[in-house]
Amino acid sequence: MKRVFNFSAGPAILPEEVLKQAQEEMFDYNGTGMSVMEMSHRSKPFEKILDDAINDLKEIMNIPDNYKIIFVQGGASMQFAGVPLNLMKNKKADYIVTGQFSDKAAKEAKIFGDVKIVASSKEDNFTYIPDCSDLDIREDADYVYICENNTIYGTKFPVLPNTKGKPLVSDQSSCFLSEPIDVSKYGVIYAGVQKNVGPAGLVVMIIREDLITDELSFPVPTMLKWKTQVDNNSLYNTPNCYSIYICGKVFKWIKNNGGLEAMKQRNIEKANVLYDYLDTTDFYIAHAKKDSRSIMNVTFKTKDPELDAKFIEESKKYNIANIKGHRSVGGMRASIYNAMPKEGVIALVEFMKKFEEENK
Amino acid sequence: MKRVFNFSAGPAILPEEVLKQAQEEMFDYNGTGMSVMEMSHRSKPFEKILDDAINDLKEIMNIPDNYKIIFVQGGASMQFAGVPLNLMKNKKADYIVTGQFSDKAAKEAKIFGDVKIVASSKEDNFTYIPDCSDLDIREDADYVYICENNTIYGTKFPVLPNTKGKPLVSDQSSCFLSEPIDVSKYGVIYAGVQKNVGPAGLVVMIIREDLITDELSFPVPTMLKWKTQVDNNSLYNTPNCYSIYICGKVFKWIKNNGGLEAMKQRNIEKANVLYDYLDTTDFYIAHAKKDSRSIMNVTFKTKDPELDAKFIEESKKYNIANIKGHRSVGGMRASIYNAMPKEGVIALVEFMKKFEEENK
Repeated sequence: MKRVFNFSAGPAILPEEVLKQAQEEMFDYNGTGMSVMEMSHRSKPFEKILDDAINDLKEIMNIPDNYKIIFVQGGASMQFAGVPLNLMKNKKADYIVTGQFSDKAAKEAKIFGDVKIVASSKEDNFTYIPDCSDLDIREDADYVYICENNTIYGTKFPVLPNTKGKPLVSDQSSCFLSEPIDVSKYGVIYAGVQKNVGPAGLVVMIIREDLITDELSFPVPTMLKWKTQVDNNSLYNTPNCYSIYICGKVFKWIKNNGGLEAMKQRNIEKANVLYDYLDTTDFYIAHAKKDSRSIMNVTFKTKDPELDAKFIEESKKYNIANIKGHRSVGGMRASIYNAMPKEGVIALVEFMKKFEEENK
Repeated sequence: MKRVFNFSAGPAILPEEVLKQAQEEMFDYNGTGMSVMEMSHRSKPFEKILDDAINDLKEIMNIPDNYKIIFVQGGASMQFAGVPLNLMKNKKADYIVTGQFSDKAAKEAKIFGDVKIVASSKEDNFTYIPDCSDLDIREDADYVYICENNTIYGTKFPVLPNTKGKPLVSDQSSCFLSEPIDVSKYGVIYAGVQKNVGPAGLVVMIIREDLITDELSFPVPTMLKWKTQVDNNSLYNTPNCYSIYICGKVFKWIKNNGGLEAMKQRNIEKANVLYDYLDTTDFYIAHAKKDSRSIMNVTFKTKDPELDAKFIEESKKYNIANIKGHRSVGGMRASIYNAMPKEGVIALVEFMKKFEEENK
């Protein structure tokens, strides 16, 4: 059996312990005589899987009681519409655009209301997070929106924006569960799980209770109303059961490996192996500015796109997979999520050094 | 390892060959060194999984070239809104209500337009499919809607309704791929895969080309526009990759087992084992009327709810799982999808006879 160091931005690497359990339970989950894929979402064994997932997530993130957790389908992209549909009362929202996904989210919100871009780093191809300490947030804005970690560019908000009292909505898809956060600073946190948590097709949402309402300003599909999902504990219809099951295993894996504080320390250590090297060479150029660096996605390139292509091709011989950057940035991107072992990052940096030696 | 005869209505039994392959490929799909859960949806191996799934489905269903196939998230319930949002031009649609799901679909459509119920069997607790040969379809109706197989009640349309030229939209969730159909008779076919095909969290849609448009009558979330999904071959954002992978394996399993004609013959044979027995006893009462019987879901009860409860409890000793009926019908329901072996149905009928003997 072959395994590679999988630097894919998402869907992405999962902990081998989790895959091993899923493999063992494929024909018979916990004495039920069936796979979780074959199990009614209203059965007791599945209800326990769901409850455990919610309780473990609450515990590892230290989520206050006035927040509700739901699991929904459609990806973060579906919530680009879900956010304005559920939160726009005045039909006004302020967006901070730091990459392709917040840009898309803002455009989607414009279908439904008046959207103001209060800060952006678009003019510099999103190499940094703008200073958001004193933005011109509108008095009657329903919320302020960010994409907290920008997968494509390798940037992350070093501090949260000052929203001047408006609820903060954060797409955390590529940094969810990478480190401890203070949930109480957010109105809504949501994340597509396919980057740092589990199989694609599931979004985790953590929503402050007072933002969940039935009185919406638009005719909203029942499935897109957060209140539907909250009132039915994510079981209004059949959810993505298998992804919930795998995510639940990942939550337990995080718990058993020291929780989010330990994840953070490991992730910083891994990222520093890369950044420390990038800071000593001028053969490779880092895309993200130093004060905006992500510990989940590290982006860099050489001075020559042909050399980048050679790098990507040769890296495969060293068991390095999916290191190619997004086309809007070019070069390379190492996504080093929780499940990426430190030895994977070390193998990558060793290859980078060798490649530099041979091609400088 | 224990395996049961799993009569769950959905999520439901899958072919053991498919589970075995998934188990074997958990750590290394086809030499890639990763699980399909860890694989970029834009990678070559996944693109092949998706293309194969589409081509195999086209082949087994004999889908004409003027139909598009997409894989979307959110379950059939999300499409209860998707259907009116994408098809309502005159904002008028005619619904045939033969169970809880067509009822829900009609209510959801009312959020967006003028809905007329042109036929219903609600007054008789949905024991039959009404005669739909000459309904009062409105001249300016945008479409006619049915739920073709009613999981809860065990009924199925014996013939398709005469829609008087309007596009027929059919929710086939619980009869999809159970027998050959003439796709050209439909405007839109859609099905949640979690009943007869694969893991929950995926809907297959087969849409006649001329019904796919960007000019919609409502502000529609980009993800809910069928055109978005068609134009991007279901890869506008990250789809439920793992479910597509398992469904693709099921499509191949159907191909390798004689295609839909063979499925139909097996399914009729299995259903007849149950129906033939039900027709000879008055200890059990079948819910569905004879001319409306489903070959996928068989519903029956005894004359006494306490006896039903005893039946359900005792059946577990005979490896029979999830035989309890839906609360709105009571009694028992045997869902006997493609993957249910004939021996499972025989085991059930043997238990039914024994139970009758002991309790009559």
